[in-house]
Amino acid sequence: MPKTLIVGAGMVRFGKFAPEITLEKLATGAARNAMKDCGVSRKDIEAVFVGHVFGGPVAGQRIATELGLGGLPVSNHENYCASGATALREAWTAISAGLYDIVLVIGVEKMTDRVKGGVAPDANDLDAMHGYIMTAGHAMSARRYMHDHNATREQIAAVVVKNHAHSQHNPYAQYQHAISLDEVLHARPIADPLGLLDCSPISDGAAAAIVCSEKGLAKLGITEKRPEVRGVALVSGTLRAGTGDINEEDISRRAGRLAYQMASIDPADIDFVEMHDCFSIAEIVRMEGLDLIPTGEGARWTESGKTSIGGQLPVNPSGGLLSRGHPVGATGMAQVCELYWQLTGQAGARQVEDAKLALAYCKGGTVAGTDGGAVSVVVMSV
Amino acid sequence: MPKTLIVGAGMVRFGKFAPEITLEKLATGAARNAMKDCGVSRKDIEAVFVGHVFGGPVAGQRIATELGLGGLPVSNHENYCASGATALREAWTAISAGLYDIVLVIGVEKMTDRVKGGVAPDANDLDAMHGYIMTAGHAMSARRYMHDHNATREQIAAVVVKNHAHSQHNPYAQYQHAISLDEVLHARPIADPLGLLDCSPISDGAAAAIVCSEKGLAKLGITEKRPEVRGVALVSGTLRAGTGDINEEDISRRAGRLAYQMASIDPADIDFVEMHDCFSIAEIVRMEGLDLIPTGEGARWTESGKTSIGGQLPVNPSGGLLSRGHPVGATGMAQVCELYWQLTGQAGARQVEDAKLALAYCKGGTVAGTDGGAVSVVVMSV
Repeated sequence: MPKTLIVGAGMVRFGKFAPEITLEKLATGAARNAMKDCGVSRKDIEAVFVGHVFGGPVAGQRIATELGLGGLPVSNHENYCASGATALREAWTAISAGLYDIVLVIGVEKMTDRVKGGVAPDANDLDAMHGYIMTAGHAMSARRYMHDHNATREQIAAVVVKNHAHSQHNPYAQYQHAISLDEVLHARPIADPLGLLDCSPISDGAAAAIVCSEKGLAKLGITEKRPEVRGVALVSGTLRAGTGDINEEDISRRAGRLAYQMASIDPADIDFVEMHDCFSIAEIVRMEGLDLIPTGEGARWTESGKTSIGGQLPVNPSGGLLSRGHPVGATGMAQVCELYWQLTGQAGARQVEDAKLALAYCKGGTVAGTDGGAVSVVVMSV
Repeated sequence: MPKTLIVGAGMVRFGKFAPEITLEKLATGAARNAMKDCGVSRKDIEAVFVGHVFGGPVAGQRIATELGLGGLPVSNHENYCASGATALREAWTAISAGLYDIVLVIGVEKMTDRVKGGVAPDANDLDAMHGYIMTAGHAMSARRYMHDHNATREQIAAVVVKNHAHSQHNPYAQYQHAISLDEVLHARPIADPLGLLDCSPISDGAAAAIVCSEKGLAKLGITEKRPEVRGVALVSGTLRAGTGDINEEDISRRAGRLAYQMASIDPADIDFVEMHDCFSIAEIVRMEGLDLIPTGEGARWTESGKTSIGGQLPVNPSGGLLSRGHPVGATGMAQVCELYWQLTGQAGARQVEDAKLALAYCKGGTVAGTDGGAVSVVVMSV
């Protein structure tokens, strides 16, 4: 199977943009940055893979046309918050099959004008009808975690403080300022014990990468080593609402094991993680679900700095969803950009020292039990 | 590259269903029929690929959960009316890459309650704002065709008569009755010269297939020869509204050539075609765009019976979009089902004699010039 390499990455800064800054503009901005990053021109690109949730039919084709790539194979891929990673998966699969040597992958979302009032649960979601929406689910997860593992509210809030500290040094982050533990603890309550700063924001944004085979690398005349996509695991599953343990994270465990097997790695060798911290507590329980932090230790690890840059296993050096922002379809590709920058030593003041092997995790779907969810795990190494 | 084979196909009858007959029910019905068709059980299936446009986020995961396939990799693929074919493309790519041996591919759409009043053009489509919507575009295409090629209204209407004649024998078709030329010519006018019967209907429906590698075939203990997916071409492009020749069909020509090359076939050897006849005239100009009928001859070929079952090159033995119906995300997979049934000699009274090599074409996007479109071409042989 041909190797899949990331040879260029590009983003636009995440944030809240006016209606004139369209989905297409965000996506083309990120794509052009990725192309410039590695000197790829339009004629080099053989296919375009686009991940988004709310862009509407053939959004990818509109983006390709604006990029001057009209004519190429263009496909749109959706798996809720794992949409960007799913687009990467299709590109990785196509390169593995030998179909293409140089492709463009984009994750994009314009939330502010396309998703008024935030992401709504499915109309037929019985749990949501009874109030069991995202925030409620993660609040219950936090309560259960604190009870089961003797963890404190402050330890969970430390995730937010850490991720904001990290993204001070990320020029593409929606928030680029540090916040204090006190600010997290005294933010407007959302679903007890979680406050506003425990929740990822509504964001617009795009992230893109140029993805190649080794033959593509040679075509482009690139001689330096580039990060390899070792595997993209995708699994689905249902959270067990109301029964069992809300923090069981069976879906994360299955995705992690599949990814470790695909990539032939020992998870203990992973140098840093980009984690889907849609809520502060989610970073903790998902890291444990991946068997990267011992069960019940995630909150204490965070408080003690083990998951900070410079710590034992840095999590979200980019700032994560909480502070880089979360334009849902873009998030998976923003993680891929961060992995690329870190693994090539280009992450500046947020650089994880000696990073060789990294993992990115996305979870899409609803927290409630009746709907399916998607978890993607990307493993990259240099 | 491992070969990709279709080993089972299943549909539900296309039509207009009550809100209780949900997208999930349609999809699971088609999937179960495909599984039954080849004796595949749930434990055999390794991944699920779903094509739809209006199903909403993670519709594929909801479908997989209802099928008892929760847990598997599930992905959602959108390319407007080429969405079903795009899902097949991703499955074909994954099997070619050696990722899976047995997968389920579903195309589904619930139009009647999800797309009130039919498919609307993009809000920013300047051409559409000025009245250049689908029906207007195809009406102009028909006028131009009649002018350029000395074709008659009756010859174009013959497409509708033929496709209804074919679908009398298709138990999954929305319409299963013959219609007369007179009925087509005197139907309610829509956009002159096209009347109501020249336009494909609003439909609900689903179609599915079990897609395998040769290893998968052996695992299932199937010893008979099964149709091979020889290639799935995908291209994008923009129709030139207001400039040039509206019937140029450059996008179809590029897709066709790519598919012939992928499949290493001479298009002259194709035994029948499933064509995206969203409007009567579209069947004619697209067949010519694919170089399967000489330019300017399509209308006369239809009138003379050359594209009927028993003719030189049967087009739409299933009844096509005009008479089988057109649930947009399902259409590409309904074509794949028809190819499978025809190539395995299971098409009953609509069987194309001695069918060995077949092509299915889908076109997604808007007719107007500002947006991108997607064209897929699937080639299968036995």
